[in-house]
Amino acid sequence: MIDQTLLPREFKVIECRTLSALKEAILKMRVRGAPALAVAGAFGVVLACKEIAASSQSQEALKKAVAELANLRPTAVNLSYGVQRAFSAALRGGTAEEMFEEALKEAKKMLAEDLEVNKKIGENGAKLLKDGDVVLTHCNAGRLACVGWGTALGIIRTAVLKEGKRIHVFACETRPLNQGSRLTAWELLKDGIPVTLIADSASAKLMRDGVVDCVLVGADRVVKDGFFNKIGTYMHAVIAKEHSIPFYVAAPLSSFDLRRSEKDVKVEERGKEELIFVGREQIAPLNVDVRNPAFDFTPLRFVSAFVTEKGVFRPEDLENLEKSIQNGSQNGSISV
Amino acid sequence: MIDQTLLPREFKVIECRTLSALKEAILKMRVRGAPALAVAGAFGVVLACKEIAASSQSQEALKKAVAELANLRPTAVNLSYGVQRAFSAALRGGTAEEMFEEALKEAKKMLAEDLEVNKKIGENGAKLLKDGDVVLTHCNAGRLACVGWGTALGIIRTAVLKEGKRIHVFACETRPLNQGSRLTAWELLKDGIPVTLIADSASAKLMRDGVVDCVLVGADRVVKDGFFNKIGTYMHAVIAKEHSIPFYVAAPLSSFDLRRSEKDVKVEERGKEELIFVGREQIAPLNVDVRNPAFDFTPLRFVSAFVTEKGVFRPEDLENLEKSIQNGSQNGSISV
Repeated sequence: MIDQTLLPREFKVIECRTLSALKEAILKMRVRGAPALAVAGAFGVVLACKEIAASSQSQEALKKAVAELANLRPTAVNLSYGVQRAFSAALRGGTAEEMFEEALKEAKKMLAEDLEVNKKIGENGAKLLKDGDVVLTHCNAGRLACVGWGTALGIIRTAVLKEGKRIHVFACETRPLNQGSRLTAWELLKDGIPVTLIADSASAKLMRDGVVDCVLVGADRVVKDGFFNKIGTYMHAVIAKEHSIPFYVAAPLSSFDLRRSEKDVKVEERGKEELIFVGREQIAPLNVDVRNPAFDFTPLRFVSAFVTEKGVFRPEDLENLEKSIQNGSQNGSISV
Repeated sequence: MIDQTLLPREFKVIECRTLSALKEAILKMRVRGAPALAVAGAFGVVLACKEIAASSQSQEALKKAVAELANLRPTAVNLSYGVQRAFSAALRGGTAEEMFEEALKEAKKMLAEDLEVNKKIGENGAKLLKDGDVVLTHCNAGRLACVGWGTALGIIRTAVLKEGKRIHVFACETRPLNQGSRLTAWELLKDGIPVTLIADSASAKLMRDGVVDCVLVGADRVVKDGFFNKIGTYMHAVIAKEHSIPFYVAAPLSSFDLRRSEKDVKVEERGKEELIFVGREQIAPLNVDVRNPAFDFTPLRFVSAFVTEKGVFRPEDLENLEKSIQNGSQNGSISV
């Protein structure tokens, strides 16, 4: 995987050959982004199967390892979804070796699926963008957040690279980990798509100034009353509504968890060091108290539409979407 | 003055013995904060008088130097207000030496006045805070932004240190220059006032979670249809209104410029390096385009009340306030 913590200064591909290396990469956010976490989780199960087999441990040990992996980052549903899919596949195997093979097959299938799903999201969402539009986005829902192509940025890529539309992107830097400035700006520059970096708090001014045509973000988990995404998303949503600017959410169906609601989901609170330091630079007193929620919740009424691989859904259509997802079998948290 | 760019790591008092040193300090924001800029501007006139006298230059040269100083930072009205007051005083002198003495007398008077004005703002505003309140603030409207005591933070200091109320403060870090994390957190910790640092974009979540009782900020310029303050202020104002949370603005009358409106004021756009680097740390691609407006405008309808040294005014009372300010003589941009 690309070590996303080193971008934009260094592009480095790292290999996680053990489960503990993969878990460290997830916790440190070397890999992040809901769809990418699904696939990382699936390959984590593969590594777990391999290690359990090599050390002749019991299936109980595997279950425990898999559950730990699924809960490393609690807000996005995709990590546990990916872990669950690969683990369910593993259980089809009889021997430890067969379990490993089944998990590996499933993980590889997910890898291919993700790219295909992203491209469909891109096609479906690009219809919402007009030639000349200025799009504001938050965090990184691009290639780096997925296996390739991207969700929110995938839509922009399809509109620009495949359909030839002229789109300008305002990328919010996305404090505290700066996925917007480090990753989204980097990705868009690579693609030659015009991008302007702003502080998160400047989005309200730009929307008031009338220079933003729509807001387009990803989602870590869509539930029946709204969606969770990177901290700051709710702020953009309220401001967009205040200024009658469409607010779109792009996510694969694997991010939808429509039997749950806001109250059922834990919002990850990350370490205080993320607000006290930027790299080696100290920007706050060392002894200051910090609240650092990694995500926030945006109620449905702020959402103009959800863009998925199955089409564009308005919030009031979510109920139909839920019915069309096969009996919830591909959703939900891990049940091992 | 305290070099505010070095905080919180280093507390260093620097002396600006020349006009060019002072101008550099203003541009680099070693001194910042609307009220502090008024006094810095006044002392800048003192230095200008001294240098003009020493080199036997004409009064035209003085006028030019003074006008340049007044326009170094265009959004806050206080800098030009302070420059104008000291320059008007200087003009009462006949000789170059007398001009210097008059300017110095006026600058010293402003120094003393600022502290007194802040304490009155503190007393007037503290009535708005109840024991146990949780207050969200943005940027730094504290002692560091003034000569002492502070405006928005001065209110909190009065409530806590003089009236014994228990107040908890959420300080927004205030990107891109982090005045919240570097200065506000530092000041409040020094005073033993409970403070929790958050990313700017987390304020919406906290307000939605119901843990914020009011928002309290400073102002760089209040005009007849609203006010200018640090970028991000408008965002907090919209979110506060969405959640029916009172939104208070604390500012001395020297920040009021009620004959002007939004369209008359230039919003300072600062350099792109502020978003690409944090100190030595590079957080964005070097070649990315950046928009970095230092301020935004918040319309009156989002303001619950303005707290001044003359009392608390609701937006609809601003007209009366304008009348009570003596014929605008202490307001307006420099007219040299």
